[in-house]
Amino acid sequence: MTDYIEPRVLKGFRDFLPDAEITRRSLREKIESTFRSFGFLPIDTPAIEYAEILLGKGGGETEKQIYRFKDNGQRDIALRFDLTVPFARFTALHRAELLFPFKRYHIGKVWRGENTQRGRYREFMQCDFDIIGSDNPASDFEIILLIHTALSNLGIDVNIHVNHRGLFNRFLSNLDLGSKSVEILRTVDKFSKVGEDETQKNLAALAGDEKAQKILQYTGAKGSFTDVLNRITELSGGPSAESQRLLLLHQYAQDVSGSFTFTLDPSITRGLDYYTGVVFETFLKELPDIGSVCSGGRYDNLAGLYSKEKDAISGVGSSIGLDRLLVALESLGKLPDAKDCLLAIACADDKNSGLYQSLALKFRQEGIPCEVFLEADRQLVKQFVLAEKKGMRYVIIPGDNPLTDKLTLRCLASRSNLELTFEEALEKIKT
Amino acid sequence: MTDYIEPRVLKGFRDFLPDAEITRRSLREKIESTFRSFGFLPIDTPAIEYAEILLGKGGGETEKQIYRFKDNGQRDIALRFDLTVPFARFTALHRAELLFPFKRYHIGKVWRGENTQRGRYREFMQCDFDIIGSDNPASDFEIILLIHTALSNLGIDVNIHVNHRGLFNRFLSNLDLGSKSVEILRTVDKFSKVGEDETQKNLAALAGDEKAQKILQYTGAKGSFTDVLNRITELSGGPSAESQRLLLLHQYAQDVSGSFTFTLDPSITRGLDYYTGVVFETFLKELPDIGSVCSGGRYDNLAGLYSKEKDAISGVGSSIGLDRLLVALESLGKLPDAKDCLLAIACADDKNSGLYQSLALKFRQEGIPCEVFLEADRQLVKQFVLAEKKGMRYVIIPGDNPLTDKLTLRCLASRSNLELTFEEALEKIKT
Repeated sequence: MTDYIEPRVLKGFRDFLPDAEITRRSLREKIESTFRSFGFLPIDTPAIEYAEILLGKGGGETEKQIYRFKDNGQRDIALRFDLTVPFARFTALHRAELLFPFKRYHIGKVWRGENTQRGRYREFMQCDFDIIGSDNPASDFEIILLIHTALSNLGIDVNIHVNHRGLFNRFLSNLDLGSKSVEILRTVDKFSKVGEDETQKNLAALAGDEKAQKILQYTGAKGSFTDVLNRITELSGGPSAESQRLLLLHQYAQDVSGSFTFTLDPSITRGLDYYTGVVFETFLKELPDIGSVCSGGRYDNLAGLYSKEKDAISGVGSSIGLDRLLVALESLGKLPDAKDCLLAIACADDKNSGLYQSLALKFRQEGIPCEVFLEADRQLVKQFVLAEKKGMRYVIIPGDNPLTDKLTLRCLASRSNLELTFEEALEKIKT
Repeated sequence: MTDYIEPRVLKGFRDFLPDAEITRRSLREKIESTFRSFGFLPIDTPAIEYAEILLGKGGGETEKQIYRFKDNGQRDIALRFDLTVPFARFTALHRAELLFPFKRYHIGKVWRGENTQRGRYREFMQCDFDIIGSDNPASDFEIILLIHTALSNLGIDVNIHVNHRGLFNRFLSNLDLGSKSVEILRTVDKFSKVGEDETQKNLAALAGDEKAQKILQYTGAKGSFTDVLNRITELSGGPSAESQRLLLLHQYAQDVSGSFTFTLDPSITRGLDYYTGVVFETFLKELPDIGSVCSGGRYDNLAGLYSKEKDAISGVGSSIGLDRLLVALESLGKLPDAKDCLLAIACADDKNSGLYQSLALKFRQEGIPCEVFLEADRQLVKQFVLAEKKGMRYVIIPGDNPLTDKLTLRCLASRSNLELTFEEALEKIKT
């Protein structure tokens, strides 16, 4: 018989120990800082909402994966499974209080009772950013530029693949396949997973051999942005509002100086139904095989399901997969070393702990994080070892008068001690 | 019949619109920055845990308030209602991976199905910080100093009230009331709510008139730290390890230069059972009536309930009430103005949107957040109004060659325009 409760976490859930949590926060802060530099504003919504709101029109996968339950008042409630649905509800509810075009980001946890065998988690962090209330190409472009900038600021080179679902639909309509566009889009979306033969077979089953061939010609168009654009414009029946928009995006990209480019890739369709315009996926140049780390697109009517008003709010947005990005950065050796406390004050005699704190405050006031060790130990060796394990660089060995005596600064890497004034120690630590 | 789903949030839950979210984040970041400057490390734990873990020994209030349900695998699970219980479970599970003394902080949402009539929320943010694996007075002191520093860094003056529950228990044992200490502590804890007469009556019912009188003498002791310490030391039967600890905390405080002081207040007991040593509450000098914004204390055996090992991990910790603090800062007019995007580039012609982004990137590279407006409007007045509503200070009115022409910088407050080079504009905006 045990007299304790076994400590464990649920399958698909994770604790974050300090090193992992510091890294995740640092990544998040850098991304947020880019969002803020573009004038995007943060919002937050509750983790729990009415189930009818989160389930909306319903949908097989969502219904199966959502954490849904009754609260003590017998309300039918659920945990959010993404940040898009809550944002649609938020927009409908606060429409009158928002300034449009509204540029927002939202970083928060979501929960899905997914099969964990595929390396998926049941609790994970989403990071969404959108511009709503504007249908112009400049918004599409800003979202794409923001993806590029946010990831560049993390030291990552990316290829952004862009397509226009409306143009593809125009092409399908010309083939008399308009009514099958959802199935065809989904089939094309799986190309990279199942390969060309399988895709052709599946398309042929939907549209016949000849049309399947034409679809693969369209989605397989390769070359420079202009070459591909010309090709798919022609295949879709000549210039249109959709092809004009793609042309404008290309011109905008050329107007932005620096290394910013993106690829026109007619095979990108995004599986989700609600995209109607430009869609995009983002691949790491050094690790393309892990799949898209940031995907999104333009949608027509974000808040329609929750709005009495009939005028639609269209928008364009994207989502960074933080967990996938963390794994990628780790395997590229590009995880930021975000440890910021590199200095400890050893505890030579705990009757002086107040004085050690006072000395530490002086360093902190100069912007240097500083930990005070709390357990007295005349030998100090244990404290050096602890500081090293914590990833610190320096330990101050205080004398009997920590605030007035010279300081002994131990450099852990070289195992050498220096006798310094406070100002000299500060100088040494800052460099 | 409606053809839409009514957008609403659950009672006791809140959306955070950008202004409120920016403020909350700014507060949180400042507090975190103080934690980090002391070498405290962040952790995270799942929002959902096994119900048996969260409920532990059980407890009336918790059982009633917890969000508890079955997942799709019929596991009995629940949302965390505080960060203390998950931390105990975390410590038991990861004991071998942690470096002790372990100084950690954890900021995250918790959920309680509380009565919302008392102005309480069902989803709110907790902010906990603890030092575990160390029983010495220097740890107690560091937590108290950290409370003071974190709140001072927010521009708030606080009175920290400290007491020692062990000393109070020693006093009660001398009165032969050791077996009733939990009830007596709870009764004393309610003093400020119910007043002296009611407290005396309740104490008399527990301990008789004479002893009730003595208890009130003890808890009502007033004066300088030393006066009060002498008084309660005497009432508890003379010097003890507990009174020595309080004396040492006082000496530490005197050793820290600056404005740092705290009050010895024998009426502070904290209602919660698990505190065994020093306890503390924190009041705003300018708004004492809102109650303690940061409370905590020392406990004996954090992870005992989840540990096979019999050696206890003691610790000392505290929790900042972020929601209460936000309300307090608002009524004191001390909310940080955390808007950081004060500059927009107007959209004179949307064929130039790429060039506007290019110009914006130049500002962003200089550390100046800059929003690009996306909707063309030759008149520009609407865009000035939008920028003002967003709380911005400047709008750049670009010419036909935004990257090479001089810039027109409009100062929204003075409604005046300046013709400037990029460098001059940068200079102006930075000041």
